[in-house]
Amino acid sequence: MANTGELALIQQIRQRAAHRSGTVRLGIGDDCAVLRPPTGHDILVTTDFSLEGRHFRRDWHPAVSVGHRCLARGLSDLAAMGAKPMAAFLSLALPEGLSKTATGRRWIQGFLAGLMALADATGTPLAGGDTAAAPGEAILADIVLLGSAPRGSELRRSTARPGDSLYVTGALGGASAEFQALAARPQRFRRAIADAAHPHLFPIPRLAAGQRLRRLATAAIDLSDGLSTDLRHLCEESAVGAAVDAAALPIHPLAQASASPLDHALNGGEDYELLFTASPTARVPKQIGGIPITRIGQITRSRGIFLSGNGEDEPLRAAGWEHRI
Amino acid sequence: MANTGELALIQQIRQRAAHRSGTVRLGIGDDCAVLRPPTGHDILVTTDFSLEGRHFRRDWHPAVSVGHRCLARGLSDLAAMGAKPMAAFLSLALPEGLSKTATGRRWIQGFLAGLMALADATGTPLAGGDTAAAPGEAILADIVLLGSAPRGSELRRSTARPGDSLYVTGALGGASAEFQALAARPQRFRRAIADAAHPHLFPIPRLAAGQRLRRLATAAIDLSDGLSTDLRHLCEESAVGAAVDAAALPIHPLAQASASPLDHALNGGEDYELLFTASPTARVPKQIGGIPITRIGQITRSRGIFLSGNGEDEPLRAAGWEHRI
Repeated sequence: MANTGELALIQQIRQRAAHRSGTVRLGIGDDCAVLRPPTGHDILVTTDFSLEGRHFRRDWHPAVSVGHRCLARGLSDLAAMGAKPMAAFLSLALPEGLSKTATGRRWIQGFLAGLMALADATGTPLAGGDTAAAPGEAILADIVLLGSAPRGSELRRSTARPGDSLYVTGALGGASAEFQALAARPQRFRRAIADAAHPHLFPIPRLAAGQRLRRLATAAIDLSDGLSTDLRHLCEESAVGAAVDAAALPIHPLAQASASPLDHALNGGEDYELLFTASPTARVPKQIGGIPITRIGQITRSRGIFLSGNGEDEPLRAAGWEHRI
Repeated sequence: MANTGELALIQQIRQRAAHRSGTVRLGIGDDCAVLRPPTGHDILVTTDFSLEGRHFRRDWHPAVSVGHRCLARGLSDLAAMGAKPMAAFLSLALPEGLSKTATGRRWIQGFLAGLMALADATGTPLAGGDTAAAPGEAILADIVLLGSAPRGSELRRSTARPGDSLYVTGALGGASAEFQALAARPQRFRRAIADAAHPHLFPIPRLAAGQRLRRLATAAIDLSDGLSTDLRHLCEESAVGAAVDAAALPIHPLAQASASPLDHALNGGEDYELLFTASPTARVPKQIGGIPITRIGQITRSRGIFLSGNGEDEPLRAAGWEHRI
């Protein structure tokens, strides 16, 4: 029998969730949700844990940021492949005592508010999930995103070609620079609200850019682990190398203001910008929906990955975060 | 940076997982998996936690059973709605020390073996997921199942009608009777293997029956929480009542041999049989694919749920397990 806290949580989620929308024919309340994909489209699926102590800290991250980031991770995976969101599913396990305190209930409210605000902003119905009592003291979330893209049109990380130009959306290093500031003085960030000034607490998945890139890019990946690591993933999967121009990197103002701008830009994870390649003859716009697009290098036939700057090339070591299957 | 244990786990899952199959156009290795649903079909989605200490105990359940049950829960949700499995996604977080011991590595191997054996037996490709280091000492799994059914043909729990007959597949109470025996003497079950003699350790999702019932049943639900609770879910969603004939209940031999056969059959959860309704004029077969089908009562216009036996009717209280959204 579920405890009253769990039942209250289920009730809160039910109230906020979509029972029916365009693609969601049946939401929460049966054994499965039922979705109707657009005719002639493939379905894209991604799942991402958000575990307290691994992906967030309750004493550092405001609850609204944890909810936002939980959904943003999955949406960014859809963006990287050019998909449009169809539905999200949230599995959430809470420690037993959490809903018994006012602080705990505020945390749950904040988490759901952050998640639903981003869901609403991106047209992503919450269509189901699971709840449970967590076995320990850590809050455990797992988010599943389904998206759609016209058959065979999705962007992959394995299809870059020698000679392609290499681009990124937005600016790099902001998330890890903000994370460093957060770790030093978390109390300064308690009341942060979702806007572009908070690249770590409230990253913005590049959904519009990803969908536009379906017809421009040859390959794409999202920058979740850091440029040096994600570029290596792209190169390994495509069996190519790359040369990155250090001077061309669009470095986020928060990273610029830090002690090590280039390190944040190369190795700081969780920027959730898109890294993509395009034919050297493709007409890649300077911006998409207000987000700048910057050419930062090119794809090479030889398999090494190099950073050029100060007149000479040096190997670019993957020094970001690796965690996914 | 992932530790070597996590990387080894990812490697194991990659080796066992489907990179491509009929519906899986792209499996593990990119930001999302890409699935191609059959033309004219809807997509059904369900997610289920399997958390150590909540859904299983490492000192009670053999690892191979934990893997089997993790997938079986989701497959049973697909069965209840008449869907055919398309793909599974496994999110798995392991305590940091687990892969450093031989016992821990055997546990992981056993878990994956149990999950993959059922995946293979049911034609369910493992197409992705996520891995992480768990924040505590508990093993955390979340399974996502996607299935397909011809548009608008799925079975729901909200569509039973007064006068319909009420049926179950298989036998009831076996899972909770075996669970009782397991809790009393777990060492007896260390080497149990997946067969029909183990309704708790190795439940068999009724996929073939569910698909066949799409054209026979008016409503369906799977018996995950126990007959008394799941029948209440079905009746509440359908705005009807029910009368159950105690003498007609097909009670599992393990429950028959216990001290309280009827209690196991009515309130024991996790049988993963299907409870369904059909028009009184429908030709419901005596068995589907070797699984007996038993009429156990009928749906009534008045909203109460009653159990008849010993000459008089008594209200059937929902005394099973409630936990899902």
